[in-house]
Amino acid sequence: MDRVAIIGASMTQFGDRDAWIRELLAEAGDSALRDAGVDGSDLDHLYVSNMASGEFEGQTGVPNALAHDLNAVPAYTARIDQTSSSGGAGIFAAWQSVASGASEMTMLVGGEKMTHRTTGEATDVIASLTHPVEYKHGVTLPSFAGMTARKYLDEYDAPRESLGKVAVKNHKNGLDNPHAQFRKEVDLDTVLDSPIVADPLRLYDFCPITDGSAALVFCPESVAREYTDDYVVVSGVGGATDTHVVHERDDPTTMGGVVESSQIAYEMADRGPEDIDVAELHDMFTILEFLQSEDLGFFEKGEGWKAVEEGVTDRDGDLPINTSGGLKSKGHPLGASGVAQAYELYQQLLGDAGARQVDAEVGLACNVGGFGNCVSTTILEQP
Amino acid sequence: MDRVAIIGASMTQFGDRDAWIRELLAEAGDSALRDAGVDGSDLDHLYVSNMASGEFEGQTGVPNALAHDLNAVPAYTARIDQTSSSGGAGIFAAWQSVASGASEMTMLVGGEKMTHRTTGEATDVIASLTHPVEYKHGVTLPSFAGMTARKYLDEYDAPRESLGKVAVKNHKNGLDNPHAQFRKEVDLDTVLDSPIVADPLRLYDFCPITDGSAALVFCPESVAREYTDDYVVVSGVGGATDTHVVHERDDPTTMGGVVESSQIAYEMADRGPEDIDVAELHDMFTILEFLQSEDLGFFEKGEGWKAVEEGVTDRDGDLPINTSGGLKSKGHPLGASGVAQAYELYQQLLGDAGARQVDAEVGLACNVGGFGNCVSTTILEQP
Repeated sequence: MDRVAIIGASMTQFGDRDAWIRELLAEAGDSALRDAGVDGSDLDHLYVSNMASGEFEGQTGVPNALAHDLNAVPAYTARIDQTSSSGGAGIFAAWQSVASGASEMTMLVGGEKMTHRTTGEATDVIASLTHPVEYKHGVTLPSFAGMTARKYLDEYDAPRESLGKVAVKNHKNGLDNPHAQFRKEVDLDTVLDSPIVADPLRLYDFCPITDGSAALVFCPESVAREYTDDYVVVSGVGGATDTHVVHERDDPTTMGGVVESSQIAYEMADRGPEDIDVAELHDMFTILEFLQSEDLGFFEKGEGWKAVEEGVTDRDGDLPINTSGGLKSKGHPLGASGVAQAYELYQQLLGDAGARQVDAEVGLACNVGGFGNCVSTTILEQP
Repeated sequence: MDRVAIIGASMTQFGDRDAWIRELLAEAGDSALRDAGVDGSDLDHLYVSNMASGEFEGQTGVPNALAHDLNAVPAYTARIDQTSSSGGAGIFAAWQSVASGASEMTMLVGGEKMTHRTTGEATDVIASLTHPVEYKHGVTLPSFAGMTARKYLDEYDAPRESLGKVAVKNHKNGLDNPHAQFRKEVDLDTVLDSPIVADPLRLYDFCPITDGSAALVFCPESVAREYTDDYVVVSGVGGATDTHVVHERDDPTTMGGVVESSQIAYEMADRGPEDIDVAELHDMFTILEFLQSEDLGFFEKGEGWKAVEEGVTDRDGDLPINTSGGLKSKGHPLGASGVAQAYELYQQLLGDAGARQVDAEVGLACNVGGFGNCVSTTILEQP
């Protein structure tokens, strides 16, 4: 079967944007079309990854509006929502549209507009994905993160500083990402002295509220070759869920959705963790980078923190993680984040990552919704 | 390539339900699993068609909750939103998941919970899909319907009564549908004397606000045969958009998305309008049944009203339309409607439609979002 290729990609400036969701999506979509050398009218399918434009802005039907803005009518459109992992779910949908033969040219645009709402309002929308009973008892995503971090540190004898070093590393990477929300280095003391949010996690252990969009153009590899030599291949995609009620999980330090979705993706790609040269992980909270790096098989259980301490995941380490700056520094516009992860891999695999460039032929992105409730893993490769 | 089969289907009672979206989805999902003879743990993918659980109920992440309720964890889940045509878009997504080889067992559950909100609140959520400028000028979906009806009646010399006869026919069909919201016959005078909503359309030209859910189980035909002989095949699926700004359309009496999406579905199925034995059309407003019946190629442009007048689309006519009662009598829980259309066809093709049974080997469903902004067409057949 023809493999599925990505021939164009883009992301907008992430941060506090004076633009509505529709404008952000059109900005990323237009850039990705130009990167691919494709017109909107060439698109068969156009997917939008977005969690909550209705809740955030009172605007629904944005895929249809985007089809207008990109001159893509009558392309088929739909919105894919999988909360914070909507972007990864969108990649899976776009892959399926091409792999099934339904489309020869599909664009995915992910985005979210959030900063016009207060942090309380924005987090209330996000918290609506949790189990209503857990939520009523005050167990929100940050408090799950705090409890999980405490258990992890205790169980695996990890120092609190190791979590802080995730933030330091990712901020350092983000310094070289022109689209990142926070292009500033932070030192370990700044992280460790920042206000407590959910003990032991502090402000700098959390990603920000962000506006932004990112886009990818997919087609069969045979079609890709007609357009360009500079494309990447989606060699593996997988998605999986974990329990909706977080406290039902046997081991809070294991993310079952990461384990399951990566096994599917590895099998499809005929790859294993040892083949991955660069990875974008969902560091919504610093602790999540440890958990994912272990559940993806990069490191033994309880050893992820050591890899960070030893610099293995630094840009010049053996397995660079979050060269983009991650959600921590780049920002986390919910529906865009998974798409932006793939954009970073696309740039790395094509050698277009500038100061962030690492040596990589195979990249992996792990996009997490809820507190690991739903996860998509994508493997991209040079052709 | 292995065709995609549907081996199980269900719908809940539609109407004013004392249950939340999560309960409605689980009710339909559980019934469809039992109909298919499959366990939740057999599912690879689980899609939810839903427009606005966040806006209606403050609850997001429902696919993940549903995976829990159906014992389907770690099945991959995602929500598919295409406003009123979310159900049709969900069918397309489910088809793609199987046709691409990503899943060997996919369930789609569509649903919406609306009646706990006032009609004004519910229609405000629906209206959020329109273009903000048109909306600000008071041009909502019902007013588009009124203007389109006026133009249609004028342009094609159709009597006002012909629109009323759509309502009469569909209510008559709904009388025999145990799941319909309104199981009551209405006569033409009742329709024509009901309160004006958007001149010339009156209350009985409109579908109601509804709670409900419906579900379908998809797998490759080779897998279907291991379970049952009673299955149907998805022979054609297509989706398309029309302009987001309704007034930009050249001919308001033509729904471009219906034309385009049906052409794709006909081509895939190697079928034409003359092959269709029974159809479920999106009669959110009575005028839409005329437009779709013409744009699908069943009747010449401007002749759809005559077919209704002549009884061609009656249950005992040459081409029965909306044997289920349609959205008009059955109800319109946004995300469920497209799925429930396919459920009706499934029952008709398997000979399980009871008093509503017609003679049919090939059926077509047309699910419309917005005012034709986005459309999905599905063709189902006996194997």
